[in-house]
Amino acid sequence: MNTKAPLTVDVEFLRRFLEGERASVREKGREFAAHPALRLKPEWNLERKRQATLEGTVALANAGFTTLAMPEHMGGPEDYAGYVAGFEELVLAEPSIQIKAGVQYGLFSGAIHHLGNKNQHERWLKDALEGKLLGSFAMTEIGHGSDVANVDTTATYDPKQQEFVIHTPHRQAVKEYIGNAAAHAQAAVVFARLITCGIDYGVHAFFVPVRSEEGRPLPGVTIEDDGHKGGLLGVDNGRFGFDHVRIPLDHLLDRYGHVAEDGEYSSPIHSPGKRFFTMLGTLVMGRVSLDGASTVASKLALDIALRYAVERTQFEGGVPGQSVRLIDYGEHQRRLMPLVAKAWANSVAHESLLDTFDEVFRSENPPEATRQLLESQAAGFKAVSTWDALDTIQECREACGGAGFVWDNRLVGLRHDLDVYVTFEGDNTVLLQLVGKRLLQDYSRELKDIDFGGAARYLSHQAAEHSLYRTGLASVGRTIGDLFTPALASKRIRSGHLQEALLSSRVDSMLSDLAQKLRPATKMDRQAAADLFNTHQHQLIETAEAYIHLLKWQALTARLRDIDTSAHPDEAKLLRRIRDLYGLTIIHEHIGWHVMYGRLPMARARLVEPTIGRLCRKLALNAPDLAEMFGFTGEHRRTQISEGQEEARQNEARAYVRQARSRTDYPIDEKIIRAKRS
Amino acid sequence: MNTKAPLTVDVEFLRRFLEGERASVREKGREFAAHPALRLKPEWNLERKRQATLEGTVALANAGFTTLAMPEHMGGPEDYAGYVAGFEELVLAEPSIQIKAGVQYGLFSGAIHHLGNKNQHERWLKDALEGKLLGSFAMTEIGHGSDVANVDTTATYDPKQQEFVIHTPHRQAVKEYIGNAAAHAQAAVVFARLITCGIDYGVHAFFVPVRSEEGRPLPGVTIEDDGHKGGLLGVDNGRFGFDHVRIPLDHLLDRYGHVAEDGEYSSPIHSPGKRFFTMLGTLVMGRVSLDGASTVASKLALDIALRYAVERTQFEGGVPGQSVRLIDYGEHQRRLMPLVAKAWANSVAHESLLDTFDEVFRSENPPEATRQLLESQAAGFKAVSTWDALDTIQECREACGGAGFVWDNRLVGLRHDLDVYVTFEGDNTVLLQLVGKRLLQDYSRELKDIDFGGAARYLSHQAAEHSLYRTGLASVGRTIGDLFTPALASKRIRSGHLQEALLSSRVDSMLSDLAQKLRPATKMDRQAAADLFNTHQHQLIETAEAYIHLLKWQALTARLRDIDTSAHPDEAKLLRRIRDLYGLTIIHEHIGWHVMYGRLPMARARLVEPTIGRLCRKLALNAPDLAEMFGFTGEHRRTQISEGQEEARQNEARAYVRQARSRTDYPIDEKIIRAKRS
Ligand SMILES: Cc1cc2nc3c(=O)[nH]c(=O)nc-3n(C[C@H](O)[C@H](O)[C@H](O)COP(=O)(O)OP(=O)(O)OC[C@H]3O[C@@H](n4cnc5c(N)ncnc54)[C@H](O)[C@@H]3O)c2cc1C
Ligand SMILES: Cc1cc2nc3c(=O)[nH]c(=O)nc-3n(C[C@H](O)[C@H](O)[C@H](O)COP(=O)(O)OP(=O)(O)OC[C@H]3O[C@@H](n4cnc5c(N)ncnc54)[C@H](O)[C@@H]3O)c2cc1C
Repeated sequence: MNTKAPLTVDVEFLRRFLEGERASVREKGREFAAHPALRLKPEWNLERKRQATLEGTVALANAGFTTLAMPEHMGGPEDYAGYVAGFEELVLAEPSIQIKAGVQYGLFSGAIHHLGNKNQHERWLKDALEGKLLGSFAMTEIGHGSDVANVDTTATYDPKQQEFVIHTPHRQAVKEYIGNAAAHAQAAVVFARLITCGIDYGVHAFFVPVRSEEGRPLPGVTIEDDGHKGGLLGVDNGRFGFDHVRIPLDHLLDRYGHVAEDGEYSSPIHSPGKRFFTMLGTLVMGRVSLDGASTVASKLALDIALRYAVERTQFEGGVPGQSVRLIDYGEHQRRLMPLVAKAWANSVAHESLLDTFDEVFRSENPPEATRQLLESQAAGFKAVSTWDALDTIQECREACGGAGFVWDNRLVGLRHDLDVYVTFEGDNTVLLQLVGKRLLQDYSRELKDIDFGGAARYLSHQAAEHSLYRTGLASVGRTIGDLFTPALASKRIRSGHLQEALLSSRVDSMLSDLAQKLRPATKMDRQAAADLFNTHQHQLIETAEAYIHLLKWQALTARLRDIDTSAHPDEAKLLRRIRDLYGLTIIHEHIGWHVMYGRLPMARARLVEPTIGRLCRKLALNAPDLAEMFGFTGEHRRTQISEGQEEARQNEARAYVRQARSRTDYPIDEKIIRAKRS
Repeated sequence: MNTKAPLTVDVEFLRRFLEGERASVREKGREFAAHPALRLKPEWNLERKRQATLEGTVALANAGFTTLAMPEHMGGPEDYAGYVAGFEELVLAEPSIQIKAGVQYGLFSGAIHHLGNKNQHERWLKDALEGKLLGSFAMTEIGHGSDVANVDTTATYDPKQQEFVIHTPHRQAVKEYIGNAAAHAQAAVVFARLITCGIDYGVHAFFVPVRSEEGRPLPGVTIEDDGHKGGLLGVDNGRFGFDHVRIPLDHLLDRYGHVAEDGEYSSPIHSPGKRFFTMLGTLVMGRVSLDGASTVASKLALDIALRYAVERTQFEGGVPGQSVRLIDYGEHQRRLMPLVAKAWANSVAHESLLDTFDEVFRSENPPEATRQLLESQAAGFKAVSTWDALDTIQECREACGGAGFVWDNRLVGLRHDLDVYVTFEGDNTVLLQLVGKRLLQDYSRELKDIDFGGAARYLSHQAAEHSLYRTGLASVGRTIGDLFTPALASKRIRSGHLQEALLSSRVDSMLSDLAQKLRPATKMDRQAAADLFNTHQHQLIETAEAYIHLLKWQALTARLRDIDTSAHPDEAKLLRRIRDLYGLTIIHEHIGWHVMYGRLPMARARLVEPTIGRLCRKLALNAPDLAEMFGFTGEHRRTQISEGQEEARQNEARAYVRQARSRTDYPIDEKIIRAKRS
């Protein structure tokens, strides 16, 4: 059905080019993830799934993956970005293992690492990173999920015994959804309000043993099991309640808040708010890794769906007696190709996030602007990629028809497991508000004439974190005037300049419009300001999302610029198609805005849709390459529908028909007889 | 946070008004569905889930539900629409039971009923409807899912033995995904090519026993188990292979194709294509019931999420020390309210579909136009409602945060089970093409000057069904000229006339544009015509969807007109808000189109978004009523998060704080001390 020829591309080159400097650590992660022992069987009960997940998590440490994260003073290379990258590929084996390992080596170990002192590292960190000391990260409470700055568990210092008393005052303060809690954790990093000398210093982290060596809850600790969930059945989530549980003074992870023996509190950060959010900031790795892992999951789903689409046929087409491959249907191309483009945009943007992450975590005192950018990007990228993953996996599942619903074809399980990625490590809706709030702060700083302190003050109550650092608003940068030169108005619809102009002018105008609308808040009382803000909450979130899309588009474009077009002309062309499809898809999702606000003349706007159609058709010509480019093997896909089974059966059917036709008793089609008669 | 007062509405009245004449049969269905014995536990293994599902399915017959579908000549009332309506509510108990019952009493029994003769009714139908003869509906094959007109299983007549030989010629012809196959079916209605006297008469239905009394596959029958799936774990899907299995002549369900003892074939319908699609047409009930059931599932999810949103609080708001209820967040309103409107639009439109269904199935010889409308509506409504259900359940799951991911809170299981509703009984993408194709046919008939026979011929290969009857294109009706009177241009954005004008002019112009584009196909060879069509496949599907949205909007509006506004002023207002939100939401989803094609001036288009925001805010004031209106009880929701648990814990926490504050050792917040100091 396709008459145009596909591009001739070196898929290995492309993958490595797109994965960049962390390509080889990803390869190692994938190699590990290919191990068949890491698979959970759907018929196993919860207990067995949890046990197997634990074993996979420990195997990861045994294979040496976690030493990458060992601090320098303990002999580690402290290659966080490489560590995270390898880690993300674990989702290919089992999302449950990726998440349980994330809790153990990311959150639990990471909290000890970044919030604890060297002594505490020696005591707990090595064992934790080696999977010998199993632990939980206990922040969320029943009553406080998104709003963790206000958890209610208390840690009251008792100077007589030089101990903290960890206590759950009421049911809303029970720690909830805690990974590793229901079955395996021996200890937990518990977030609780530090109270000493009659003063509540806000939320700090404490190392709290929770189970005896025999695995029973320690005195005063109540553990409940969250039981069945919508996915991640290998992860043992549960609840912790504490009834006046005593821990020694030196179990306070005291990097940002120290208590002397006599109970005197000291901290390098004065502002209680800033202190807590600085602590949280050190734990950004979780979010970063979900951005990456969900993108890996999207690629896996696309790999399966593309391979199936190339084999599977349905309905006779232009050639009598010959069925059409799914990939040759215009609609099928429209369903899958934009998702391929999104997966690569998310992937390349993620690598840039890892660069920032590396920069911040490698330096003793990273520039505030970079830290700020990291937090904003981690929040926003994670929100967009995890939602994209759900859409992508679901579309792939549907694109495989009934076969997509069969467990062994992988897509449904992946969809179930990834579901909660949009909720944990910060609910997406809340994360985008955080991004939006920072855009507003920067905006008000850049345009000095606007002060919307009232709203901003209110906003800091509303967003999960706050910070005084600058976001990357500068990268939105140029004003509409700069961008919409007359020359641009005549550019081809696939022009990168035009795409950037549209994407960034949307962020610019939505943001300035929002700032104007929130301006009156400065002169309002708190309730009125809250109401005003609430009326524009949706716009704030939309603005944040537009900004994140722009950043992702820019990351993809920046990568594109690095390709040697004379050595790799077809590869460059393919990437250009992917980039353009990404840009135009995002623009098309908000085409109404671009037209309504006069950014795109109507006649030109009408070209976007058909251009997307053409790009999808062209990209579909390289569907097998696009699948191969993801870099997975049959061991990762573990499905039959993507490994030639369908084609083998079709050949068998064709052979049967050929043979049957030669028989004298082969029936004639009634239609032919009717046609002859008439 | 909301200062405006909610409307005072009688929710019972509203529900009954919207459910219309089938409100009481739905109540009965809900009563049955509330039974706790019908619940599947997540920890059960497949076998136990299947057994419990079977028991639930049989219990339904024992409770007398299925007698409604008994044919008149067997003493039944033949109230199909009532039957289907009651049935759909079963999804509240367990989607597995709804689907297994659908296979048993809908597909299997329905095929015997509508494709068999009276003798066959006496022999099998009563037992089938009483759940005593368990059966499968075996149409799909591995190689032919959407394209069922071309299945490869053969039924060759042997005049010597007066038997049919049912045979699976190759692996692609194995019956696949067949409900009831893996464990319970004693017989199956098998769709196979009828071959007699050396002629292949195309696909017909045969009654084929598959299991012995002891439950073992009969000789020549191979049964495989599809095993774990993404949901519906209580339904035992599997595969059937036939190796020259012999059945008596009178096992051919021969309403539309009869074979005499000597092998001579006769049929009331000459055209083989029309014959097969007429057979399929009699089985429309499955699609109709999925439209209804998925709407019930959407309502259930919304009921849970709304109740939780009214209780759950997160973050401090305008009043210090007081957390904000989720339902009071602008974004939360934006997430849930349009879905409430869609659920009601789908629900009311579904009742109108049931009316048409009733009309067609009650009459001996229904008007062709009505049959045609039924098929188009069933296909299109099913596609849109099942997709809406997935979006709705997922949004509700996310809106409940971590609690939404806990199995016992119901939403994830519902989402898993409903997933495949978009695929079976006709894949949605394929169904919308069927709708689109019929629109084109009608269009070419109405505007006599256009003949695009070439494309239409090609299209009939591509759509799952074809028919010569007229769709309800007339209801799109009025031309753009009629609609866009100058008076309309000044109408309020909430004006129903404006909404209808926009929705219908979109269908009109997309359709005529498409017809123009496909016109050259008449003069093309088959391959070129196929390519041309393929390039516009996406537009065809979009057009079909726009048409279905218009029909749903019209159904909702028609219902609205029936309310006695003086007796029920607030109820009428609420419905108006729902209708307007539905209309504007659909318009906003394609706002780019409306502006690009000059239907909405830019300045007016910019009003749509804020109007939606306002409608959401207003509707959210009645959130508890909107939940209650769905008519479910705690027995249907079966979650703790929707039954006051959260509020009880909040009260407990508040009581704790009140009491603790009165203690002398209650700690002072560091922030207060800092504030005092500075
Ligand atoms: C499987 C699983 C594993 C987890 N593992 C851990 C763990 O190991 N350790 C740990 O500490 N926590 C863990 N969590 C908790 C997780 O981080 C929280 O569920 C998450 O932060 C959301 O909090 P919540 O569930 O209380 O939802 P809520 O905060 O109650 O949010 C509910 C809904 O309200 C919306 N909402 C909230 N605030 C606002 C606002 N201001 N404006 C608009 N909308 C708003 C949200 O978008 C969301 O849709 C886990 C959760 C799950 C489900
Ligand atoms: C749980 C379950 C229960 C089932 N129960 C039964 C049963 O009891 N009896 C029975 O007979 N069947 C049953 N089915 C089969 C079901 O009806 C089919 O799965 C469905 O019709 C789709 O067919 P397919 O799976 O072969 O997908 P395909 O037809 O191969 O379609 C695959 C994908 O290609 C796309 N596609 C196909 N054709 C076109 C086209 N022309 N243009 C553009 N895109 C196209 C589709 O949109 C889809 O996304 C069941 C299936 C499942 C999963």
